[in-house]
Amino acid sequence: MTESKESTVRLLITCPDQPGIVAAVSGFLHAKEANIIHSDQHSTDPEGGRFFMRNEFYLPGLDLDGLEDLREEFAEKVASHFPMEWSLNPVWVPKRMAILCSKVDHALMELLWRWKRGDLEADISVVISNHPDLREAVEHFGVPFHHVPSGKTLREKVIAEDTIMELMGETDIIVLARYMQILTPDFVAKYSRRIINIHHSFLPAFVGADPYRRAHQRGVKLIGATAHYVTAELDEGPIIEQDVNRVTHSHDIDDLKRLGADIERHVLARAVKWHLEDRVIVDGNKTIVFRR
Amino acid sequence: MTESKESTVRLLITCPDQPGIVAAVSGFLHAKEANIIHSDQHSTDPEGGRFFMRNEFYLPGLDLDGLEDLREEFAEKVASHFPMEWSLNPVWVPKRMAILCSKVDHALMELLWRWKRGDLEADISVVISNHPDLREAVEHFGVPFHHVPSGKTLREKVIAEDTIMELMGETDIIVLARYMQILTPDFVAKYSRRIINIHHSFLPAFVGADPYRRAHQRGVKLIGATAHYVTAELDEGPIIEQDVNRVTHSHDIDDLKRLGADIERHVLARAVKWHLEDRVIVDGNKTIVFRR
Amino acid sequence: MTESKESTVRLLITCPDQPGIVAAVSGFLHAKEANIIHSDQHSTDPEGGRFFMRNEFYLPGLDLDGLEDLREEFAEKVASHFPMEWSLNPVWVPKRMAILCSKVDHALMELLWRWKRGDLEADISVVISNHPDLREAVEHFGVPFHHVPSGKTLREKVIAEDTIMELMGETDIIVLARYMQILTPDFVAKYSRRIINIHHSFLPAFVGADPYRRAHQRGVKLIGATAHYVTAELDEGPIIEQDVNRVTHSHDIDDLKRLGADIERHVLARAVKWHLEDRVIVDGNKTIVFRR
Amino acid sequence: MTESKESTVRLLITCPDQPGIVAAVSGFLHAKEANIIHSDQHSTDPEGGRFFMRNEFYLPGLDLDGLEDLREEFAEKVASHFPMEWSLNPVWVPKRMAILCSKVDHALMELLWRWKRGDLEADISVVISNHPDLREAVEHFGVPFHHVPSGKTLREKVIAEDTIMELMGETDIIVLARYMQILTPDFVAKYSRRIINIHHSFLPAFVGADPYRRAHQRGVKLIGATAHYVTAELDEGPIIEQDVNRVTHSHDIDDLKRLGADIERHVLARAVKWHLEDRVIVDGNKTIVFRR
Repeated sequence: MTESKESTVRLLITCPDQPGIVAAVSGFLHAKEANIIHSDQHSTDPEGGRFFMRNEFYLPGLDLDGLEDLREEFAEKVASHFPMEWSLNPVWVPKRMAILCSKVDHALMELLWRWKRGDLEADISVVISNHPDLREAVEHFGVPFHHVPSGKTLREKVIAEDTIMELMGETDIIVLARYMQILTPDFVAKYSRRIINIHHSFLPAFVGADPYRRAHQRGVKLIGATAHYVTAELDEGPIIEQDVNRVTHSHDIDDLKRLGADIERHVLARAVKWHLEDRVIVDGNKTIVFRR
Repeated sequence: MTESKESTVRLLITCPDQPGIVAAVSGFLHAKEANIIHSDQHSTDPEGGRFFMRNEFYLPGLDLDGLEDLREEFAEKVASHFPMEWSLNPVWVPKRMAILCSKVDHALMELLWRWKRGDLEADISVVISNHPDLREAVEHFGVPFHHVPSGKTLREKVIAEDTIMELMGETDIIVLARYMQILTPDFVAKYSRRIINIHHSFLPAFVGADPYRRAHQRGVKLIGATAHYVTAELDEGPIIEQDVNRVTHSHDIDDLKRLGADIERHVLARAVKWHLEDRVIVDGNKTIVFRR
Repeated sequence: MTESKESTVRLLITCPDQPGIVAAVSGFLHAKEANIIHSDQHSTDPEGGRFFMRNEFYLPGLDLDGLEDLREEFAEKVASHFPMEWSLNPVWVPKRMAILCSKVDHALMELLWRWKRGDLEADISVVISNHPDLREAVEHFGVPFHHVPSGKTLREKVIAEDTIMELMGETDIIVLARYMQILTPDFVAKYSRRIINIHHSFLPAFVGADPYRRAHQRGVKLIGATAHYVTAELDEGPIIEQDVNRVTHSHDIDDLKRLGADIERHVLARAVKWHLEDRVIVDGNKTIVFRR
Repeated sequence: MTESKESTVRLLITCPDQPGIVAAVSGFLHAKEANIIHSDQHSTDPEGGRFFMRNEFYLPGLDLDGLEDLREEFAEKVASHFPMEWSLNPVWVPKRMAILCSKVDHALMELLWRWKRGDLEADISVVISNHPDLREAVEHFGVPFHHVPSGKTLREKVIAEDTIMELMGETDIIVLARYMQILTPDFVAKYSRRIINIHHSFLPAFVGADPYRRAHQRGVKLIGATAHYVTAELDEGPIIEQDVNRVTHSHDIDDLKRLGADIERHVLARAVKWHLEDRVIVDGNKTIVFRR
């Protein structure tokens, strides 16, 4: 559905499931004369499980000041009656996005190309790489590029990450488009549930380095890619999206890398798009994804 | 989710979209102390479009008498305020299903096997074929089988259909598992939105007879199957589900039929399952399918 | 292609790659006036790699005696010039197949149903289970069923396997259709490259027990199944075929099992079909699969 | 397989099937001491059908002069004994490719990006569009861009095509990357089997204009794209590749266009890649595609 985005808001809710949540939320929105465009919900178990909701609605004339008032009112009239995590996100304000990458370009180019054609609801504030190679390709899209060499020692790593944080400024999402560096626990904690990585295998198969080589050695008949939120444990964060492609005995490791690159860029692009559209809610080490 | 089905009800709603529907429905259910298990909704356009809702809820102690009362109350307190088509369907009462088939067994066997393992919420009352070949295979599942030869003239067709109707009795769904006979308009009208057919092509490609032969002649690289509700126009009814499979130049027509049979049986089984679970709402010549 | 199978032979070759193999083989077949129907080949590396060939040809009037002569002549005129593993398999003689299963029926039923409709080039000599439950379902297909309880101790296991071997007699392929018992190394060694197992996960993810439970805990977005030859190491044998299906946050473990069953039965059926059609050649811990 | 391309040649053969072709070809290559890297063949019917072969081989030291000699020798020693269409194509000489496009960029960008990363064995000589919009995007890749407005009358069309032909010069392949103009029969005939078009539907469904709108109206559950050689009849040429993607009731026409764009660019890229790698042989109105 093509929506006018002005005055459109997305409400995300996570709370223990219990009777009356939907009635309270929809009653509130109806009283405000909001026009509900999409609504999705999920309960892990109506008895003692957790409840998740995504609501997209239009409230004519709503601006950022009005949204602030709406938040206060929602907090008082609805949220205070339930132990609820929630947010009200203005659709007309693009999220700020930073991209970290290394030398290979496929995942990065896919994001930039989709962003340019209006497919990603974001302002890409900066692309940062530990190699200078992709500068021209990035700047061609009018996006600032910075080269921040990665550190070898922990001390150097921390300094590099400080530089990265300064260059990014405030950011709603950090995308690791084949960044190939392990981030420090402090960095990961600071941006919890906001860093999306693309791993070049069908997790949990082939956690860690060189997955295509290991996939080739194992003789698998499908290769895959996995987009997930980054947590302190390598390749163990909540999975957002995965996909696979068929391979045969005639494909060598370079073929797997080439074919895998196509899976990686699409899986990452879908995961980023869904995050930007507030379709992903983290539930422990899993995700609820309200796809269409 | 494994649900206890006793006292569980599915509410289906279709109406012009307008503010307040969700608030009214969820307020009503909350007041009845119903426990909502799943809820899905769709609007073709919040401004002047049509609204569709599927709600599965648990109301402790509800029996068929209680359901009748609930219907009356819902009609008065909710439905009367909107121009609403709606139904409240008891999940613990299986739908009555009849299957019509011909000589080939794959689609029929898939349904019987899934039904036997408890995957289809139905009572299969009867299997009727215009050929006697599959009698033993059907009766092995403990399902009555009847052989009703198809008529050549319209007069004979009408008589055959009368026999079929008598054998089926009241039925909630009729599945054409490769029945290969064109039904009369009267028959189709009588069971409107209740007859599901499997067509052995990816509609609207290859409408009509012998689709695999035509697919082979055209040199397509994918073959498909389509499950749809039957309407008066051949192969033009609302599509419920479609799927495809890759083929190559090395597959001849018999290969296409063999590979296609696998697509057909799965596409039909999914469509039938969704219909039985009240997941499909017809909207003109399209369907809303609330999949998981 | 629909082939008449009489006098049709499949030649399988594995050898170090070197110039002249194809010329020698095709020259030999041409001199015998064989009509080549299909020919596939693969080289892991033309320089020092391994070469694999599958050749299906028709030699009018060839019977089993003639085939024996052909083998002798091929050994002398072709194979002796190369360090070649090879076989000449008469297509008109179905392979002997035994199936081991447990309580769940989906993989077994799929094989029996495909076999009955002529889709598997095999004589199913026997179905053996460590549970009696599936007797009637198997015997309905006219296939002998035996219940051989599995042993708990190694001693009991060996006795059970001896009974199984006696019941199977000579066999070309043993299919583990969700057998759920770990075979002894002796048994596995005796039937090397002839035992096909279906593992209910996308290997190498979730090796071992209870893969659907672990897939659910990890929050994967695709579930899979893997057909592989059985070796001494659990779930580590050469992979023949794999496939996956999409799942969402709304599927619980029982849903995964139900959806996974559909993947399992198709992946196993394809792997068995390819083995029976001499399409699979084992290369170390991998397979060459000459699909169409 | 990563191949060094120097002195590597691809032999394509089409002829009526008859005994001795493979023996003659492989005997010839063996006598020349060629090292066969890949070999694929297909017969529509060993009795009276047509035979197709693709052979990739390495002949140390072979240059373009040597290739000319090889062609003469092959013509005399092999081809003259069969009514054979054949070609010997030097892999180390990239094919000349021209791209025609219009305003939308997705299919074009995918080709340019894959070409730049070395994935397409071609020299892209020129991109020509009937709109000026994509000039900067094309020139950024270092490829010449020309704007040739399309004609309305047949006279203007012929003049525009003359300009296009002049700008292209000699070319081995012309790719219509969403060109949206119907070419004249003369132009099509001149470049027979060398023009590849991407149609934005799963042919033969939705031949002609505005396929996504019609797919939406019909309520299909999968949308697709088709790459085919262009012939005089609109959207009726030999199909090279097709693919589909799942859609739901919640996708409007713009969503279908957006999702379809991803299918289009991959289907076209695969078809072009296969053509460049001599993997596609036209057989009447079908194609033989020797995929890996």
